[in-house]
Amino acid sequence: MARILLINPNTTTSMTESMAQAARTILSPGNELIYKTSAYGPPSIEGYYDEVFSVPPLLELIRAEAEYDGVVIGCFDDTGVEAARCLADAPVMGICQAACHYASILADSFSIVTTLSRSVPALEKRVLSYGYERLCRSVRASDIPVLDLEHCDSNTQLQNLKNECIAALEHDGAEAIILGCAGMVNLQQQLQDELGVPVIEGVTAAVTLLEGMAKLPLQTSRRNAFAKPVAKTYSGQFAGLSPC
Amino acid sequence: MARILLINPNTTTSMTESMAQAARTILSPGNELIYKTSAYGPPSIEGYYDEVFSVPPLLELIRAEAEYDGVVIGCFDDTGVEAARCLADAPVMGICQAACHYASILADSFSIVTTLSRSVPALEKRVLSYGYERLCRSVRASDIPVLDLEHCDSNTQLQNLKNECIAALEHDGAEAIILGCAGMVNLQQQLQDELGVPVIEGVTAAVTLLEGMAKLPLQTSRRNAFAKPVAKTYSGQFAGLSPC
Amino acid sequence: MARILLINPNTTTSMTESMAQAARTILSPGNELIYKTSAYGPPSIEGYYDEVFSVPPLLELIRAEAEYDGVVIGCFDDTGVEAARCLADAPVMGICQAACHYASILADSFSIVTTLSRSVPALEKRVLSYGYERLCRSVRASDIPVLDLEHCDSNTQLQNLKNECIAALEHDGAEAIILGCAGMVNLQQQLQDELGVPVIEGVTAAVTLLEGMAKLPLQTSRRNAFAKPVAKTYSGQFAGLSPC
Amino acid sequence: MARILLINPNTTTSMTESMAQAARTILSPGNELIYKTSAYGPPSIEGYYDEVFSVPPLLELIRAEAEYDGVVIGCFDDTGVEAARCLADAPVMGICQAACHYASILADSFSIVTTLSRSVPALEKRVLSYGYERLCRSVRASDIPVLDLEHCDSNTQLQNLKNECIAALEHDGAEAIILGCAGMVNLQQQLQDELGVPVIEGVTAAVTLLEGMAKLPLQTSRRNAFAKPVAKTYSGQFAGLSPC
Amino acid sequence: MARILLINPNTTTSMTESMAQAARTILSPGNELIYKTSAYGPPSIEGYYDEVFSVPPLLELIRAEAEYDGVVIGCFDDTGVEAARCLADAPVMGICQAACHYASILADSFSIVTTLSRSVPALEKRVLSYGYERLCRSVRASDIPVLDLEHCDSNTQLQNLKNECIAALEHDGAEAIILGCAGMVNLQQQLQDELGVPVIEGVTAAVTLLEGMAKLPLQTSRRNAFAKPVAKTYSGQFAGLSPC
Amino acid sequence: MARILLINPNTTTSMTESMAQAARTILSPGNELIYKTSAYGPPSIEGYYDEVFSVPPLLELIRAEAEYDGVVIGCFDDTGVEAARCLADAPVMGICQAACHYASILADSFSIVTTLSRSVPALEKRVLSYGYERLCRSVRASDIPVLDLEHCDSNTQLQNLKNECIAALEHDGAEAIILGCAGMVNLQQQLQDELGVPVIEGVTAAVTLLEGMAKLPLQTSRRNAFAKPVAKTYSGQFAGLSPC
Repeated sequence: MARILLINPNTTTSMTESMAQAARTILSPGNELIYKTSAYGPPSIEGYYDEVFSVPPLLELIRAEAEYDGVVIGCFDDTGVEAARCLADAPVMGICQAACHYASILADSFSIVTTLSRSVPALEKRVLSYGYERLCRSVRASDIPVLDLEHCDSNTQLQNLKNECIAALEHDGAEAIILGCAGMVNLQQQLQDELGVPVIEGVTAAVTLLEGMAKLPLQTSRRNAFAKPVAKTYSGQFAGLSPC
Repeated sequence: MARILLINPNTTTSMTESMAQAARTILSPGNELIYKTSAYGPPSIEGYYDEVFSVPPLLELIRAEAEYDGVVIGCFDDTGVEAARCLADAPVMGICQAACHYASILADSFSIVTTLSRSVPALEKRVLSYGYERLCRSVRASDIPVLDLEHCDSNTQLQNLKNECIAALEHDGAEAIILGCAGMVNLQQQLQDELGVPVIEGVTAAVTLLEGMAKLPLQTSRRNAFAKPVAKTYSGQFAGLSPC
Repeated sequence: MARILLINPNTTTSMTESMAQAARTILSPGNELIYKTSAYGPPSIEGYYDEVFSVPPLLELIRAEAEYDGVVIGCFDDTGVEAARCLADAPVMGICQAACHYASILADSFSIVTTLSRSVPALEKRVLSYGYERLCRSVRASDIPVLDLEHCDSNTQLQNLKNECIAALEHDGAEAIILGCAGMVNLQQQLQDELGVPVIEGVTAAVTLLEGMAKLPLQTSRRNAFAKPVAKTYSGQFAGLSPC
Repeated sequence: MARILLINPNTTTSMTESMAQAARTILSPGNELIYKTSAYGPPSIEGYYDEVFSVPPLLELIRAEAEYDGVVIGCFDDTGVEAARCLADAPVMGICQAACHYASILADSFSIVTTLSRSVPALEKRVLSYGYERLCRSVRASDIPVLDLEHCDSNTQLQNLKNECIAALEHDGAEAIILGCAGMVNLQQQLQDELGVPVIEGVTAAVTLLEGMAKLPLQTSRRNAFAKPVAKTYSGQFAGLSPC
Repeated sequence: MARILLINPNTTTSMTESMAQAARTILSPGNELIYKTSAYGPPSIEGYYDEVFSVPPLLELIRAEAEYDGVVIGCFDDTGVEAARCLADAPVMGICQAACHYASILADSFSIVTTLSRSVPALEKRVLSYGYERLCRSVRASDIPVLDLEHCDSNTQLQNLKNECIAALEHDGAEAIILGCAGMVNLQQQLQDELGVPVIEGVTAAVTLLEGMAKLPLQTSRRNAFAKPVAKTYSGQFAGLSPC
Repeated sequence: MARILLINPNTTTSMTESMAQAARTILSPGNELIYKTSAYGPPSIEGYYDEVFSVPPLLELIRAEAEYDGVVIGCFDDTGVEAARCLADAPVMGICQAACHYASILADSFSIVTTLSRSVPALEKRVLSYGYERLCRSVRASDIPVLDLEHCDSNTQLQNLKNECIAALEHDGAEAIILGCAGMVNLQQQLQDELGVPVIEGVTAAVTLLEGMAKLPLQTSRRNAFAKPVAKTYSGQFAGLSPC
């Protein structure tokens, strides 16, 4: 039976709870969900600067965990996913890549609708690095700050989000929508019902992907990119996180 | 609980048995595997011409099935996957795309090692259409005819296959290997042990992906590419397969 | 002198007649046009599902023909062009690729205007596989079902088609228009006159390309992709189409 | 009946003769070939610098001609093809683009074998601008100066050329070969016989393409890229070539 | 101390003066600016045809100069930059490439706003050849003829230019603007102030890049693309420009 | 006069000294170099894991600095360059992007030769994100650990490095070489002399680029990607680095 470690790399525990709630609903019987919130750092990740400070606590949580069969990074920037793959003793999944994988199975093209416009370029880079720059027709911003997502279920902000989804379908040629923020986990069903196309949410996508992979089981390649970190001693406040 | 329909689009039942055996091993408790072999057409799919004649029987098998939560097309060319997505009432997975998705999670780059050199261009086109033309560093041929794969476990042909894998790792920069034929399903463990990098086999990858997706559940988009076929009447021998 | 075999892979003979009429007008003196209609299968090809069932009858027609110097596949999806190249003893031309080749000589960029939106993704994939994803600025749908094209010469549907052409020129930066369906063969002159840019129709493009190629003469490469099919015995209704 | 204007943009008349000889052999009955050699400038085009000085005399020859239905630029760099398209009153074909178009019909991939390594980057740029950067697997140099090609039919240089062709087939995955210099026009048949794959020569490809296009007839788009030059007065030695 | 040779490849000296004025303002103390205007040819470069006739006088100016540490080609088409790199004994910079380099440092994406729509395709090709086809979100035309730029500082034309800049920011996702004509050198500050994003002008970008490079110093590679021209004798009016 | 802030994001001061030494040699009179070493974190950056822990101290150094006109990040991974662009009040340059920019001016193509094979994929991603995936023909590893570079000037390791450079020129078609590690700053002259092609070193490239840019002056765009971080309060050990 598989233990899936779900990490929210920001410090907002209510977001972790929402993600864990969604994940638990679909977890296979016998599998276990361990979920953790970053112990320090940014309360939300909005752009490149926040991202930097969310990765050390994320990696610290992975180091602290003794046994797991897969790690989900619960931020749509797939924050620190490469470093986590080097470190972790099991496959690591970012929710952006997971959602794109699912979307590519269900549709010929898709768009991502995210929070702030400042996050768009980083997502476009992610999409490019995964090879999805053609299948992904656009990354659109709804101008909703991350932490506002928790209570936007019936207001103007939700309407903005829906409008961007509709524009993606009608103007950009998307055939499916990906929700571009972990904080949107609760909006999947409602939006899917209203839009009439698959709406893909990354947390549940990532959890199910890792559960599947754990059954084979497959492990991260240690050749080149994700080789285990070279042992060395870090100084100062990161000393305790030195690779060994 | 999910019913996964696994179709071998060639007529060689021993290949279906091997695939089903591998799939059963990793199927989640409670899920059910239905496996079918094409009732007519080519005994193996080696190049574009064979591919054409493998798709009608494949689609016929899908039409004949009443209930399922996912369809695996058990040929690495992902033969007919687009038409199957239009037809089927559940997500459809080709084993090439499934294997690429898993490889992209476990490694930064990968290569595909397939059977005959004539199959390489079709796989390169698949890889391109999925967006994996950069992550996939090469598609290599081992010059083993498909049906020889069933008894190549300890001979020169296996050595050829291994040599191509090694060349992919050392010359092409691959960090993981994808087995580029459904008939290689039994070679995964041995090759992975000998090569020391993840060796990904598409049938088990596709089955686990669909099991995961079935838990959410997500459905194929009906917008544009995979819209249900327009109702019309086919004439002659395909009359019974007319969309309605 | 060259014999050009023009095949309509759907069963609608009036479409074949229109294509043959256009082809005959431009055929070089001494060359011969043989034109055939699929004996069974779909009456029109609208999306991936129809495409599957149009290829066996198409290949059957090629097998039945004794002598020819070039084969035109008269469907803008370039349905079955790869398999036909494996089979035929002369060069095979799809009308999409032919039209793109001509457009690339006459303009720096172009757009394709086709029938239904469900056909757009398949054409985008074709364009990508030929390398025209940058020169082709857009594939647009006019929402005209294929068989309606025969009598759309002065109505709202024609206006829709023209509007999409104009949008391609003004919004997408196209400098020429490609008619994205064999059924549009009769609209070329009128649209070109009204739009003031080259309007390229694939049937005449393909015929003239093959006539030219037949003079050299050049033959399909048998290395890898288009190698002659491996001899094997198909079972059931496709037995008669087994490669030998 | 069509008049095809073939221009050799270097001053070596023996090269023009060879090209004209090849073109005449395949010209359709009733069509006429007019062939011209640049009146001044470089005797051969080997790299970017020579190319600059070959274009004004090329354009001067087009301006001097009263009636023609197509223009072939007989240099594999497709020297000045864009400016010629702006100027000429009929379609203009470079022999590189023509050869690539034919190769893309006969094979899934191809390589170009040219003269000097200094010409490789310019050809790679051409190939990219036409969209053939994936289908063209490599541009290889045989280290034969252009003017040596006229008497290389049985010596070491020919062997070098053949070796590069073989390397393209075996190492780069090419399925067909394109001869990357107008001076190679006489080597096509011999190399094709020896290599066993299509060997494509651009002059005959371009002539036949233009003959075909002239039958429709299609004209260069005047929208954007190839709009007629804005009327203005050039000063000095180019005054006589001012657009008007 | 470095000598920067700035060449205006059209014959309009007032444009040279404006460029020189801008360049002098930012030239490092001790460095010297030499500026030259083409002695003959087109008064402005608007499309492919003009471009051809601007390169010989440009190269003639480089040949005439005895000592310099960098050459700026003062036309946004980067007219003749490859041939100039072959010829010149110091690095050569086109103002388009220079501006793109700077833009890529200051922003994640940018757009180019140029003069006439006929110039757009040539710039798109440049952008592609430099690798900037993703970072550059659009090349837009303001419909201002080149020579009108000198007196467009407060009129409708300037408003057109500004509207295109705004459209690039709001519709195309650009984060910075590049002025796509040497004649826009005087508009940089005003537009930057009004738009609130970096507005990059190529002449000053190119001059500062070459000043920097001259300090190292680095020289053009003579391997392949930019090898010194092969010595040969040109005939006729270009005899004096023969490579030796 | 410009103040250039050069930051070594690892803690090895001897590397900072070497970089500063090289930078000082070419700094323009009147400009000032401020150089800093990370106060804590990894002693060298070898792969994705080390990279994570090098960015917070790097950003801390930028925050601590009062006045500067440009920031050079002295690690070839361009570690944290995006976050630094969000934070810094002047343009930020990574040495990889700087070296690629210079190489693209001096040659048509180039290769990067770096230290360990584990760093290759991250550099390939950088190259892709900058648009240099075609101009950069290969990223090769010399298998020299970063800290060994300081004393490898006459031994086997240097020979390995040279061999990879030669392979890049002869097998990959590179026309120039980029040194892929800040620790190689002292090897530039020797390698350039021995290889006979431009060898580009990123620290001096970055410093000169920023000196040039500071003269205009141009500032980082605040639209989208590099907008100033949203004010928020980080918790725990990163509290002092909260954006405000």
